[in-house]
Amino acid sequence: MATLKVPEVVPSPTEDSERLRKAFQGLGTDEDGIIWILGHRNVSQRKKIRDTYQQLYNESLIERLNSELSGDFRNAVIRWMCDPPERDAKLANDALNARQKGIKQLQVLVEIACASSPHHLMSVRHAYCLLFDCSLEEDIVSSVSQPLRKFLVGLVSSYRYDKGAVDLEAASSEAATLHEAIKSKQLDHDHVVWILCTRNFFQLRATFACYRQTYSNLIEEDIMKCGNGDLQSLLKVVIWCINSPEKHFATVVRDSIIGLGTDEDSLTRAIVTRAEIDMLKVRTEYAYMFKSKLDDAVIGDTSGDYKDFLMTLLGARM
Amino acid sequence: MATLKVPEVVPSPTEDSERLRKAFQGLGTDEDGIIWILGHRNVSQRKKIRDTYQQLYNESLIERLNSELSGDFRNAVIRWMCDPPERDAKLANDALNARQKGIKQLQVLVEIACASSPHHLMSVRHAYCLLFDCSLEEDIVSSVSQPLRKFLVGLVSSYRYDKGAVDLEAASSEAATLHEAIKSKQLDHDHVVWILCTRNFFQLRATFACYRQTYSNLIEEDIMKCGNGDLQSLLKVVIWCINSPEKHFATVVRDSIIGLGTDEDSLTRAIVTRAEIDMLKVRTEYAYMFKSKLDDAVIGDTSGDYKDFLMTLLGARM
Repeated sequence: MATLKVPEVVPSPTEDSERLRKAFQGLGTDEDGIIWILGHRNVSQRKKIRDTYQQLYNESLIERLNSELSGDFRNAVIRWMCDPPERDAKLANDALNARQKGIKQLQVLVEIACASSPHHLMSVRHAYCLLFDCSLEEDIVSSVSQPLRKFLVGLVSSYRYDKGAVDLEAASSEAATLHEAIKSKQLDHDHVVWILCTRNFFQLRATFACYRQTYSNLIEEDIMKCGNGDLQSLLKVVIWCINSPEKHFATVVRDSIIGLGTDEDSLTRAIVTRAEIDMLKVRTEYAYMFKSKLDDAVIGDTSGDYKDFLMTLLGARM
Repeated sequence: MATLKVPEVVPSPTEDSERLRKAFQGLGTDEDGIIWILGHRNVSQRKKIRDTYQQLYNESLIERLNSELSGDFRNAVIRWMCDPPERDAKLANDALNARQKGIKQLQVLVEIACASSPHHLMSVRHAYCLLFDCSLEEDIVSSVSQPLRKFLVGLVSSYRYDKGAVDLEAASSEAATLHEAIKSKQLDHDHVVWILCTRNFFQLRATFACYRQTYSNLIEEDIMKCGNGDLQSLLKVVIWCINSPEKHFATVVRDSIIGLGTDEDSLTRAIVTRAEIDMLKVRTEYAYMFKSKLDDAVIGDTSGDYKDFLMTLLGARM
């Protein structure tokens, strides 16, 4: 379900490194060449290019890209070239250090905790410790206030069972627990935290389905009627990231382009982090939700190398 | 600080496997031979023996030991031969499935979370998922009641920064937060959970030292005056496991032998899990706390192969 397109015959990491080196040299940088190579390589191929480039030229490819490129194009290429756990650790840290820490920023933590694998989340926590000399959860405790804090600490601390074991009886009883909390507008009840932060994703999807069946409403719609401000928005992101990440990321793209100006950070994040995972589904969902094309939205709101790079990741340029 | 003694020249895993095979064959089992070999090998040597034995004889060494040995001796040898993360995952599961779930059982979870490395704790959580088809924290939520539940979920979910970064200002302010919670007998306050479950061990030791300096008492002594039953006992174990695990394990050994009968499970756990880590310190602490020798206590309360095996791990038999 990726939009990333990798050529059938992939050049060796040495060939790619040599071409990149050439693209950096001489007067001006050959941005097209860089997009052509890096925008058509998957995560393990990019890692090999990084390693090979370092060995061949005794310099960091990422640092070189950083000095050769600029603006949103640079940010996008560098996010794309980082190892995913390190990239996400940096995204999490940026969110926690943002001047404003609303849902728009904090949802990044939910994406990492709920829209990727338990193993990836652990690697992000490990990378976070290495990069920032403290744990991710310590930084959440010191920079996010209640009641979001306890959910975010719980979500990023989870190490969920990652196979499809579903206990239908538990799903039914936990749907009732969630319904009770929603009815009494106690979204921050510890039981809600435990259910959302410890159950495996398959189990939670069954619980949400059970909720809909029993109470005839989508759980996220009932949550949004609680009048609980930021918390209800956060929980909606949690439920979407678990249940249908494509809905969430379609909305991230949409929010980044509507209104005056573009939120390039969010747009870059959505495309860079999902191009190899489920961007095809995100594109379909976008069309369904917003009755327009995601690709047109990106083309309309971006320009130059930045646009070309995003469109390459979206599979539109081969 | 280990009591385990490994010979200067260690036989190859193949030689060890062949000797073990011989010890199993014929009429009756050669328990002395088994103790002699396995009781003098460290964790990586034991892993190699397990792998080599499996390759040579196409049977699991642990299953063979299980069928050859019996009673407390068998339990101790098998705990010793398991990979440590798997062993601890099983210990945690036993604790959560015990009919009675008091501090005596639940402290095992604290030992795993607070008296071993963050990396080991992660490996235990991974092993738990593989062995029991659900996460460790899910089982805690479903089988432990409040207020212990929220501490245990927080403790086992931690992935603490593992280098010695200490922020003295934070230590002082968090010592004050802990003091406030103790004074108002609100040990289960979320702030107490966050401090104990997210801060790195070096930081927490500084916080406890700061507490002592500012309030002229050991924090665990003040906690024990809160009249908070099981929670105060659990928090004392948390503080000891972080601050001075040797005190905790000396007490586990002591509690396992005093009174009528012996609690072999606890005695085995303390010696098997710490023989390679800090058993020398536990022995010294035991002498200091109880004015008697740990080795004498073990000799007095155990017998036969079980005694010989434990004493081998304690370094008394070479």
